Amino acid sequence: MVDELILTVFRANLDLVQNGLVIHTWGNVSGRDKDSGLIVIKPSGVKYSSMKAADMVVLDPEGNVIKGKFKPSTDTPTHLLLYKTYPSIGGVVHTHSTYATAWAQAEKGIPPLGTTHADHFYGEVPCTRKLNSDEVNENYELNTGKIIIERLGKTDPLVVPSVLVNGHGPFCWGLDTEEAVYNAIALEEIARMAFYTVLLGKNSGIEKELLDRHYNRKHGNKAYYGQVKSK
Amino acid sequence: MVDELILTVFRANLDLVQNGLVIHTWGNVSGRDKDSGLIVIKPSGVKYSSMKAADMVVLDPEGNVIKGKFKPSTDTPTHLLLYKTYPSIGGVVHTHSTYATAWAQAEKGIPPLGTTHADHFYGEVPCTRKLNSDEVNENYELNTGKIIIERLGKTDPLVVPSVLVNGHGPFCWGLDTEEAVYNAIALEEIARMAFYTVLLGKNSGIEKELLDRHYNRKHGNKAYYGQVKSK
Amino acid sequence: MVDELILTVFRANLDLVQNGLVIHTWGNVSGRDKDSGLIVIKPSGVKYSSMKAADMVVLDPEGNVIKGKFKPSTDTPTHLLLYKTYPSIGGVVHTHSTYATAWAQAEKGIPPLGTTHADHFYGEVPCTRKLNSDEVNENYELNTGKIIIERLGKTDPLVVPSVLVNGHGPFCWGLDTEEAVYNAIALEEIARMAFYTVLLGKNSGIEKELLDRHYNRKHGNKAYYGQVKSK
Amino acid sequence: MVDELILTVFRANLDLVQNGLVIHTWGNVSGRDKDSGLIVIKPSGVKYSSMKAADMVVLDPEGNVIKGKFKPSTDTPTHLLLYKTYPSIGGVVHTHSTYATAWAQAEKGIPPLGTTHADHFYGEVPCTRKLNSDEVNENYELNTGKIIIERLGKTDPLVVPSVLVNGHGPFCWGLDTEEAVYNAIALEEIARMAFYTVLLGKNSGIEKELLDRHYNRKHGNKAYYGQVKSK
Repeated sequence: MVDELILTVFRANLDLVQNGLVIHTWGNVSGRDKDSGLIVIKPSGVKYSSMKAADMVVLDPEGNVIKGKFKPSTDTPTHLLLYKTYPSIGGVVHTHSTYATAWAQAEKGIPPLGTTHADHFYGEVPCTRKLNSDEVNENYELNTGKIIIERLGKTDPLVVPSVLVNGHGPFCWGLDTEEAVYNAIALEEIARMAFYTVLLGKNSGIEKELLDRHYNRKHGNKAYYGQVKSK
Repeated sequence: MVDELILTVFRANLDLVQNGLVIHTWGNVSGRDKDSGLIVIKPSGVKYSSMKAADMVVLDPEGNVIKGKFKPSTDTPTHLLLYKTYPSIGGVVHTHSTYATAWAQAEKGIPPLGTTHADHFYGEVPCTRKLNSDEVNENYELNTGKIIIERLGKTDPLVVPSVLVNGHGPFCWGLDTEEAVYNAIALEEIARMAFYTVLLGKNSGIEKELLDRHYNRKHGNKAYYGQVKSK
Repeated sequence: MVDELILTVFRANLDLVQNGLVIHTWGNVSGRDKDSGLIVIKPSGVKYSSMKAADMVVLDPEGNVIKGKFKPSTDTPTHLLLYKTYPSIGGVVHTHSTYATAWAQAEKGIPPLGTTHADHFYGEVPCTRKLNSDEVNENYELNTGKIIIERLGKTDPLVVPSVLVNGHGPFCWGLDTEEAVYNAIALEEIARMAFYTVLLGKNSGIEKELLDRHYNRKHGNKAYYGQVKSK
Repeated sequence: MVDELILTVFRANLDLVQNGLVIHTWGNVSGRDKDSGLIVIKPSGVKYSSMKAADMVVLDPEGNVIKGKFKPSTDTPTHLLLYKTYPSIGGVVHTHSTYATAWAQAEKGIPPLGTTHADHFYGEVPCTRKLNSDEVNENYELNTGKIIIERLGKTDPLVVPSVLVNGHGPFCWGLDTEEAVYNAIALEEIARMAFYTVLLGKNSGIEKELLDRHYNRKHGNKAYYGQVKSK
């Protein structure tokens, strides 16, 4: 099981590169094994071009290395806290994808400016508050996870499966690793469309009815988009 | 005949991906068989990477499935209404291509800012009004077709073969599937050029004479562009 | 000789596509044979994907077809007038490349905002005036050539080897076909850089000394850039 | 040793093209051999498509050609002065990459708007002052090096390993050639993100604590990013 997830997480990391979301080592993907609860994550600072599946790091939920010769991603504490807090998620992706990062740097959430957004995110993709000095200086990566959770509040994480970390970039997640990558790709394109839309003079989101219709025809109880309901 | 159209529509859907107009499952193409009047359309929510020609869905003009194991695209009622209303069109394309969608999200038609535009669209590419709550809540996809038709009014659909659906994205069409895809590609590039032009400070369209000249040298009775008159 | 030029012009047309300057049939390249004075040009409205070298059209300087089964590019009268007026040029390129066209649509010349510009164009890339109604209605393509020449005035065409036609797009040229394509590629990138620069708040060109230095170290009498002086 | 560096510098020049930082001949890379102090640099004005490793030029620190049949890059005096002034650097890259050049043309340094920036540059990527007429007219390329050094002042060049030359474009460097190219790629992406961020309305940099945290977790004494400390 974990062996399969190792391969999945390895491929998902490469998918970020192939989809133009990551250059250098600016991103990481993890996945959670449903049965064992173990987490598989990219090693820290390893180049995508030479990275092998066997380089992935297997962790227990507390972050102890179970398997792997490398240190896990520096952002591991953020990933682990998301898994711990949200039992429903099975994959986490962090990137510095260009447009989503620009919104995060601008300290602005991405408003739902059209149905493309509504097809994937049920409302604004929120931006966290800034970390204060203490939160930056101590347990920075853990605190990054905390402000994500603080920002989501009572929102079901699968309903808005992405957050922009203020001044940093996006974290995305999903039922599994594949869905988390899928959401990261969607987020970047939505961030790009929203950027152009704002420059054309529109800042306010679409009407609630249209948001509901598009989100629910794909994700609601009576979803009629696609061939088989995925949730 | 329909077998040939199945292949054409299948390939046209992949062309959207190869031309950068569609990621994930954000688009669909259909075609109408001239002899039988049957419609071939992409199945709903099927991934492009694994989609096969045999996955296309064949419908009668009322939307009854004649052939195919999948549900047709969610946007089928929009496609069908366009075919029903406009006997001259043989192909319909819907995408969420980036720049055209940004204009739709900004609720603005694309003015004819240059001869590239005039070569393909005889005047502004219009943006529909918003759907009201009732229109969103009941028969949403059919109503999307209705506001497209309402917006076109008495315009020959082949003279401005694209419309932006407010807050959503572009629908394009043509004499056949291939021409509809051709127009969708042209629209995206024109939307992009127009975006940059507006940011450089120009908002008003070119003069009527220049619009006429460029449109008519390609599409008019005395067209002299290309090797053989296509219409 | 002309046979060689046919191949050169054919390849140059494909180079436009490979360098992202042209989609559909939105561009054309021609070349002039130094010995015979014959012009080779792309056929009108022929798709790049199926175009063959043998499809090129050979014309005498008056535009009579000497060889070839297709009609020449609609823009042929513009090309011919440029060749007739400027004996020094051996290649002409017309594209609707995105950023250069946006500047043309905005009716603005591209100011020399940096040394990249100065390396290729000795001053502003000018934008023509608009054609008046009569000029559009009669001999449109010839008149397009006339306003290019009017705009250049006494400028050596090889010193600023590109002009933006108002509301239309760029025409570029050079000593030969290859250099014309080279300039078209440079122009598009310079137009793109200038667009971003203007959005960052800078509109005025660099100082005359810096313009002189960069232009002349590549193109002046005492050029010291590159291995062999090309002019 | 120098033979190896010749190959490294050759490949690094091609890497600029493959990473979209350079078209035509708009860039150059050099490297310094640690043992001999010899410099290897791209020849001037040679096309990337036909360039061979053997075309690289080997110079002594004063710029005398030790090996190679071509003239070195026109920008050689700039490279040499950087090597002479900064003993710690082993590679220098100059490009006209699009977004970094736009910032240079706008005469603006790139503020540290997010953690992506902080991961690579410890503070603003500065823009030099303009050269005055005399500095342009005499020893232009040497003076370009001088204003870079003037602008850096007492800053450790490895802490902010890039500068924008006013009205021109970026120069980047690093411990070795590979790191210099790595920084040039990072700079262009950071320049792009910063451009979008500014258009979204944010101009001021991130807090000092966050800048410190991100820079130091990768580059500080207690760096904990990656597998092995590189410095």
